[in-house]
Amino acid sequence: MPTYRIDLAYDGTDFHGYAKQPNVRTVQGEFERALFRMTGEVETVVAGRTDRGVHATGQVLSFKTTQDYDTGMVLRSLNRQLGPEISVSSVAVVEDSFDARFSAIGRAYTYLVLNRDVPDPFLARTSLHYRTPLDVELMNKGIACLVGLHDFAAFCRKAPNRSTERRLDLVEWTNRGSGLLALDVAASSFCHQMVRSLAQVSIEVGRGKIQPEAVQEILESRNRRQGKGAARAHGLTLVSVKYG
Amino acid sequence: MPTYRIDLAYDGTDFHGYAKQPNVRTVQGEFERALFRMTGEVETVVAGRTDRGVHATGQVLSFKTTQDYDTGMVLRSLNRQLGPEISVSSVAVVEDSFDARFSAIGRAYTYLVLNRDVPDPFLARTSLHYRTPLDVELMNKGIACLVGLHDFAAFCRKAPNRSTERRLDLVEWTNRGSGLLALDVAASSFCHQMVRSLAQVSIEVGRGKIQPEAVQEILESRNRRQGKGAARAHGLTLVSVKYG
Repeated sequence: MPTYRIDLAYDGTDFHGYAKQPNVRTVQGEFERALFRMTGEVETVVAGRTDRGVHATGQVLSFKTTQDYDTGMVLRSLNRQLGPEISVSSVAVVEDSFDARFSAIGRAYTYLVLNRDVPDPFLARTSLHYRTPLDVELMNKGIACLVGLHDFAAFCRKAPNRSTERRLDLVEWTNRGSGLLALDVAASSFCHQMVRSLAQVSIEVGRGKIQPEAVQEILESRNRRQGKGAARAHGLTLVSVKYG
Repeated sequence: MPTYRIDLAYDGTDFHGYAKQPNVRTVQGEFERALFRMTGEVETVVAGRTDRGVHATGQVLSFKTTQDYDTGMVLRSLNRQLGPEISVSSVAVVEDSFDARFSAIGRAYTYLVLNRDVPDPFLARTSLHYRTPLDVELMNKGIACLVGLHDFAAFCRKAPNRSTERRLDLVEWTNRGSGLLALDVAASSFCHQMVRSLAQVSIEVGRGKIQPEAVQEILESRNRRQGKGAARAHGLTLVSVKYG
């Protein structure tokens, strides 16, 4: 029963999210169908289940097979089947204990905002086009308090009996030029809609709707209603997953 | 009758080319519909009619209106109507003699090839994915003879009674890293499918199918059948148009 690790990227625009669902096109559904054709295996584990419309450049999967496969052959076969929207960048045999989800010790996401009047057709699928000018310095001032261990209930979609405590290692906006702003975040894990909620509260600060100091108050309220909702999904990309 | 110049970009993937046609979605059709709603004008002139699937980052249009419009208002209105696939980056009032097509003294295109085993979902719409390794040095050696004034009949789709003589100012491949190869070409104008034909003959050289010296022989044959056909449309982008 060899264990395989797969690194993959996808443009989430035309998928109903990562996780398999009946009757709709999902990344997991497409991937497992291709894998089944080749190996007869259908069970995969993923590092970060992404929502509908969310992209990935550094997603990681794992699965076990009953027989050995040539990794180069698996790579080529998967890429030929999966077409341009999903691509497999590497296939590796890993130790049996490896589990893409439970072995992961960190995840990094980027949220992109194109902050200018004129849209860009080539960034439309992967960034939020937002016309009102945003002050990046104010945004960073507001969210700086979020680094460290906190209960992020105000910034997470409610899931019964699931902790919303997380340790955020990085949360920072940078200006990439030509109006493209990027929020980079890293943590061991995130609760549901957390990154998009951090993007949204940043935008509220950046446009002057709330004061930077309000972010801490919202955090401390631990009340989802105090949060500012979640920014649209298509600006979000899972960038990398870290293993020990 | 003020004359306006419009600079625009589009992702050509989901259009049936630039030029208006009945019953299909075209860039010109979408643009003129938006313009008509605002000004009642429908006649526009374009610098470079692009084929189905071809993109533009620096396309230029011109048109005349019977009354004056605020350029900022026109910019915002067009962008709001045209949505993410077409974007207008500038609107300017220009001298009456300006004609986007006939005033243009140069056009520049880029053809992108992702030359590696692994595809990239985020480059799939704008580059040709080509797995066989290509030798950029050989490609440049082959096409260097094309610079200058030549009859490009071997590299143009036949159009009766139209000259195929052109002066090519630039034709060069560069390696942009991570397997992305770019062919940059510039000329006062191009005949139909010329850039894609230059891309295709380069690929034949780069993979070792023909010798670099064969490019000159093909050129001199002035015979379309000696050319190697045209590379697929979606790798091509109109990058800029030059005016005097």
